[in-house]
Parts: sequence; C-alpha cells; structure tokens
Amino acid sequence: MRLNPSNISIIKRLLSGKNSRPLKAILKKCEPADIAGLFNLLHQKESINLIEAIISTDQAAEVLLEVPEQRLGVLLERMEMNKIIALLTYYPEDSCSYFLSVMNEQQRETVINLLPAERRQRLLQLLSYPEDTAGRVMSTSLFTLPITLNASQAIEYLREKPKDFPFYYAYCVDEVGKLVGVVSLREMATAPAQTPLMDLAKKDVVNVSPTTTNEEVAQLVEKYNFLAIPVLDDDQKILGVITIDDVVDIIQEQATADIYASAGLQEDDRVYSPILFSIKNRLPWMLLNLVLASYVSRVVSLFEATMQELIVLATLNNIVAGMGGNTAIQTLTVVTRGLSVGDFNYTSKTRAVLKEAAVGSFNGVVVGLCAGILVYFWKSNLMVAIVICLALILNSFFASALGTIVPLTMKYFKRDPAAGSGVIVTVLCDCLGFFAFLGIATFALHHFS
Amino acid sequence: MRLNPSNISIIKRLLSGKNSRPLKAILKKCEPADIAGLFNLLHQKESINLIEAIISTDQAAEVLLEVPEQRLGVLLERMEMNKIIALLTYYPEDSCSYFLSVMNEQQRETVINLLPAERRQRLLQLLSYPEDTAGRVMSTSLFTLPITLNASQAIEYLREKPKDFPFYYAYCVDEVGKLVGVVSLREMATAPAQTPLMDLAKKDVVNVSPTTTNEEVAQLVEKYNFLAIPVLDDDQKILGVITIDDVVDIIQEQATADIYASAGLQEDDRVYSPILFSIKNRLPWMLLNLVLASYVSRVVSLFEATMQELIVLATLNNIVAGMGGNTAIQTLTVVTRGLSVGDFNYTSKTRAVLKEAAVGSFNGVVVGLCAGILVYFWKSNLMVAIVICLALILNSFFASALGTIVPLTMKYFKRDPAAGSGVIVTVLCDCLGFFAFLGIATFALHHFS
Repeated sequence: MRLNPSNISIIKRLLSGKNSRPLKAILKKCEPADIAGLFNLLHQKESINLIEAIISTDQAAEVLLEVPEQRLGVLLERMEMNKIIALLTYYPEDSCSYFLSVMNEQQRETVINLLPAERRQRLLQLLSYPEDTAGRVMSTSLFTLPITLNASQAIEYLREKPKDFPFYYAYCVDEVGKLVGVVSLREMATAPAQTPLMDLAKKDVVNVSPTTTNEEVAQLVEKYNFLAIPVLDDDQKILGVITIDDVVDIIQEQATADIYASAGLQEDDRVYSPILFSIKNRLPWMLLNLVLASYVSRVVSLFEATMQELIVLATLNNIVAGMGGNTAIQTLTVVTRGLSVGDFNYTSKTRAVLKEAAVGSFNGVVVGLCAGILVYFWKSNLMVAIVICLALILNSFFASALGTIVPLTMKYFKRDPAAGSGVIVTVLCDCLGFFAFLGIATFALHHFS
Repeated sequence: MRLNPSNISIIKRLLSGKNSRPLKAILKKCEPADIAGLFNLLHQKESINLIEAIISTDQAAEVLLEVPEQRLGVLLERMEMNKIIALLTYYPEDSCSYFLSVMNEQQRETVINLLPAERRQRLLQLLSYPEDTAGRVMSTSLFTLPITLNASQAIEYLREKPKDFPFYYAYCVDEVGKLVGVVSLREMATAPAQTPLMDLAKKDVVNVSPTTTNEEVAQLVEKYNFLAIPVLDDDQKILGVITIDDVVDIIQEQATADIYASAGLQEDDRVYSPILFSIKNRLPWMLLNLVLASYVSRVVSLFEATMQELIVLATLNNIVAGMGGNTAIQTLTVVTRGLSVGDFNYTSKTRAVLKEAAVGSFNGVVVGLCAGILVYFWKSNLMVAIVICLALILNSFFASALGTIVPLTMKYFKRDPAAGSGVIVTVLCDCLGFFAFLGIATFALHHFS
C-alpha cells in the first residue's frame, strides 16, 4: 500500500487512539521507507506511538534504518530504555551497531552496558572498525556452504535454511571455515546433480577486509557488477558480506560528500537539518574564506597606486578572478570526480596533467583574446586590452595546471582531494591572477605610457 | 583471475600471435570489466584482435558494456560490419540498443538496415524512448510466472527455465499478461507446496513506465531497497525490468552530472577524453562567463569615481564577491542535492527557503562583523569598515535567498536545477554585492565625510 494524504490522516488518527489492531494491519502493508517518511509529519507523542507499533509488527529495524541519521538520533533518545534494549538484542547485529553509532555518547554507554554479554561484545567489535569502512557496513548474518557438498546436496542445504539465504551467491568454505569459492544459485540449479561444488564454484573470489574503505568497496562492486562482496579477516574467514543495496547508499553518500566538499559543507547538512546545526557547520568555512579573501586583498592592495592611476583596472578585476576561478573549477571537478569514480583506470596521471594544461591554455588564449577585444571596444584603451589578454592567458594556464596537480598531490598524500583542493586552488588562482593582471599593468604603465 | 602487469604483457603477446586458443583460455577467466580496461593499453590492431577474441568467447556484450561510452564509439567504428551485425543479432536487445546509441549516425543507419526485420523493429522501438528514461535502460529478457500456479508448480517452472531467471523476484501475470503481483524466491521456497501464488504474491507492485526518468527510477529503487523494478506499458503489461546494477550506474552518472553541471561541464568530459573534445565542451561555458563577468564589471564601472576617491574600496571588492559567492554556493548545493536525492520528502519547500535565509542572514551578520573589524584594523578607516559590514550582511541574505529560490523555481518549471542555477545565482549575487558595497560607500562618502 502506498501512503497518500487520506490514509496518512487515518494513520494519524489511529496513532492517538487506544486500539492498535487496525493500525498494525495498515502498517504491515506499508513499505519501511514510507513509514520512515511519516515521522516527519508526526508530533513527539505520535512518533513514540508509531515506534511502539512498528516494534510490535516487527518492522522497527527496517523502518528505523530508513530514517535520516540526525532524526534517528532524536527518535532513539525519546524511546523507552526497555524498548531499545529489546531492539538491540533481537535485531540483526549490523543494524544494531548502526543504531548505537547514531546515539549520543551517554545513551550509547548506558545501553551497551545493559545488553547481554555476548551481544555487547559482538557490537563493540563492529563499532571498533573505523567509520566509512567495510566492517561498519557489512551484514554479519551469513550463509555459507561446505565446499565438500555436491550441487543437489547444496540445494537441499539451501532449502533447509531458506531464511538466511541472501539469494545472490552462496559462499563456499573449507573445513576450517576459509573461503574457497563462490557459486550462484543459477549454477547450482542447472548443473548435473552430482557435480561437486569444488568444480562449480568460482575460485579467487574478489573480497575486501573489514578496514577497506567504503569508497573502494563501492568501486569494486560497481566495476564488476557484483550483487555482493565478502568481507574476510586475515585468515580468509568470512566476517560478513556487503550487498549491493548497501553499495547504492554508499555511492549516494559518497557523491553527496564530493559535491558538498567543494562547497565546504558537511555531509549531514541537509535541507531538513535544524537551523543551528547548519549555522554551526557552515560558519567556520565562511570565516576561513574571509581570512583567505583578505590575503588576496593584500595582493590587490600592492597595486593601489596603479589602480588609482588607471581606475579601469579596478573595474576589470572581477573578470580576471572570475575567469581564473572558472577554469580552475572545471579542471578540478573533472580530476576529483575522475579520482572518485575510477576514471584513472583509463588514463595515466601524467597524461591527465598535460591534457588539462593543454585544454586550459588553449581556452585561455581564446578567452583572453575575446576579453581583450571586448575591453578595447568598451574602454578604448589598447594597453589595458593587451594587459587583460595576457593576464587571462597566464592565469588560465596556471589555473588548469593547479586544478590537476593539487588534487592529485592530495590523493598521493592520502588526503581527500575533493575537500581541500577547491580552497587552495581558488586562492592561489586569485592571487596569481591579480598579480599577473595588475603587475603587467604596472609594468606597462611605467614603460609604455 | 585478476589482471596484473605480468599477465597483461602475456595477453598483449598473444594478441599479436596466430594461435588464439591460449588467449581465449585466459580471457574466459577474466572479469568483463578488467578486459574492458585492457583496451586502454592496446594499439588499434590489438584492440580489433581483442574484440574478435571476446566475440569468439561470447564475452563481447558484457565487456563492451563496461567500456566508457566515447571509447566504445571508436571501437565500434573499427569493427568489421559482419561482426557488428552478428553482435546486434544475437546479444540481448537492451545491450544492442545501447551499442546503436553510441554509434555515429551514419554507422547506425547502415547497421540497422542490415538487421533481420523483427530485431530491427524491436531495437528501433527501444531507441524511440527518450534518452535517460527507463525504456532505454530496462532489460527486456523477462521472466514471468502465471499467477494461477501454486508454490511448488512455480518452483518446477523456474527449474525448467533457470537461464532467464534473474534471481531476484518473479513477476506474476494473469492470462492476458497483466502484472498482478511479485513473489520472491524465498517466499516460494518456504511456503507450503500447495499455496497459490495469488496468496503469496505481493500485489500493488511499485512500477515505472518506459518514459519515467532514470532519476525517478533510481530514487524509487533506492528508497525501497528493491533489487529490481518492473517497467509497465499503459495496459499494465511488463515491457522490461530495471535491475539494481543498472541503478548503480544511473546513480553514479546522475551524481557526475550534478557535480559537473555546477561547473558547466558535460557528463562525458572525463580525464581520458580527447583534448579537442574537452576544449569544445568547455569553451562555450568560459565565453558565457566572460560575457556575464563583463556585465558585472559594468556595475562596478558605475562607481569608478567613488573608487578613485577611496581606492581601498577597489582592494576590498574581491572580499565582497567571494563571501557572497560562497554563501550562494553553499545554499545552492544543499538545495540542489536535496532535490536530486529526495531530501524534500522530509521537509517542505517553504520551510527550506526560510531556513536557508535564516542561516545565511545569521552567518552574514557574523562574517560581516568580522570583516568590519578586520578592515578597521588593516586600513584604519571606520567608515569603510561599517560599509563592508553592512554590504556583507545584505549580500549574504540575498545570496541565501537566491540560492534556494532559483533552483526551486527551475525545478518547478521542470528545468535541471543543477545546471543553470549556479551561473544565475553567482552573477546576481556579484551584481547585488558590488552594488550594495560600492553604493553604500558612495552614499556614505557624500553624506558623512
């Protein structure tokens, strides 16, 4: 059942009523993501009632996984302790470790200490993997087949445990639990009954370790069109598996992070975030930019005498800054996106640097000439026209070189190329651009007029 | 087998040799994506030999699907006509329509006319759907079950046709072929043998039409964690199915398009694209920006007298432009990303506009005050300090309001909010910012000094 204004209002009415049976009947027919969207429309009391209802219909984990992280933290804070303990004791480990990770520290500590010892240990183990790594994302409810079975035995085995079978592949392990190969259901079903799994399974399975970054996991799954990828420990034993629906979420988050990084935003700063949260996240970036802009101003300030002599230079400054900035951002965007989606599988870094410099220089010459002509006809000043042409050519060359070299260098030193490159490149380009434009102008004023 | 420098050099040697058997043996063990990466390292002649080899090992479609679009066009141009015809006659329809779409127009026309009539018609039908819609992405090799079967009959049915079964869900249809429901393999396997599919299947299946945009498809699949979504015609008959690995590609492309749009780049302008291609793609944007920057210069030009009287204003112009631009880009990024990943499911548009204006204004006040203090201590001019403070506050308010309203308006008129908003917002902010800064300064100069 899809939710619409009319059944949403029915749900709201049922949430404030005493009789929970019709409510549960409706919720059972809804998609978890739709129920998660409901929280946005509910008051505090109604939210709590809804959580109790989805716990009783056994949908709580799936629904809560769809609630945006920030909202989830708030919802969990409001839940009764015994409900949280029940959730964390009976739901899948990977969902539980996620729930713990979005709680505030105090609630997390309290909750963890109230969990059964074994569960607590497992969850602490999962939480010990760094954020944004395979260990945090993997699902630990595993299904493995002994490699010693044959095809028909394997299918019997599957039939007995259909609940844990993820439908994609079955991972085959040897007697000590090491991963030996992977076999798809299709292969098992179509092979002659007596075929040993050993012959059927694909060996040399592409795998990751629990500390592999999410970005790498996503690139592997995407490149090979896998539906799942196993996470192995140092002894080649399976710890968990990452399925493609997790990868979809990783890719979306990664893309958001890339887009956001270039604007100095934090990934969880969204249209629905609280005002104070957004202010706190964005203000430091604005202040950093103010400081950097004031350094650029110092460069401009060196040429106050020149500008006073020829005020048209002050009028044209923004063209120089704008053109340099645009060239830099174009190059930077192509390079950082290429790094994050793996485009460098198809070209070398040196070739990319040379190519971008060539493109930037060529465009710089064209744009420089056009700007020169435009300025000449507007201000009737040949010298200024020549100066802006030269400045734009120089600036465009630097902008495209910096736009490639800075992110590649950051990647080399294992820093996030999307995050810092923009600021560095823009400030350097502004400084170089103004220095070139006003510097050449000063030289020309003293020597040719 | 994973490719590494040593086996790559073996493959290269085999490609130039006469004996194709060892080459085929190696290729059969490689992942299609790895073979696709090889083309980057090969000369023209070797590329053609590799294509012939993968045709003979029946891997051609999978490998070619992994080659970046631009490269694929070039490879197809070099292939012999009879090989292309064979490819397009025997490989899955959806792959073939994709191959046709990347060919140059002349080759496409020639090839289409040489195909068997029925195939030609089917492919033309697929190509008739608009680019970036479900009809272009869907896989048309379908597997459906008659809804009249029971669970054990359905499993028998599956066993007979394991090749077409996609492993995810089976779509159940009535006697005229209308989609009635969907059932997962798990449900079929665990239900009592006699349970009718009618009772087992989930009705009211979320579906799309062939003209649904890829973006919408991706949002649905992501929201509901589906592994596949059916594409229905107006009579509710299944035309095809879009699987999650296609959605992963859609999401990556969408993210690239979003990131690129804000820098005025075309999606296929990548680090490995030919130089001329990149020049041709980026130059128009640079020239557009030159024209717009010259309009901004005209605004600055209005205040030449004021700047000449107080040259420090010319020095500080770049702070005003920079701060306004950064505020605008932060707001714009949050809003456009929110539109493309569906964040507006969790808040209303009005609330978002008000929130962003509030955040922008608050940050504007803080940044304005800081800039005022900074300028006062640097230039010891109280009036200029007050002017820049006021200008930044005003500009920040406008920047955050425009950064929300412009993309929402573009979305309302069904334009791509990521593509045009950046330019419009930046130019408007620059003009408003300079006008506020230099205008207030002119007023102050005339009235207070």
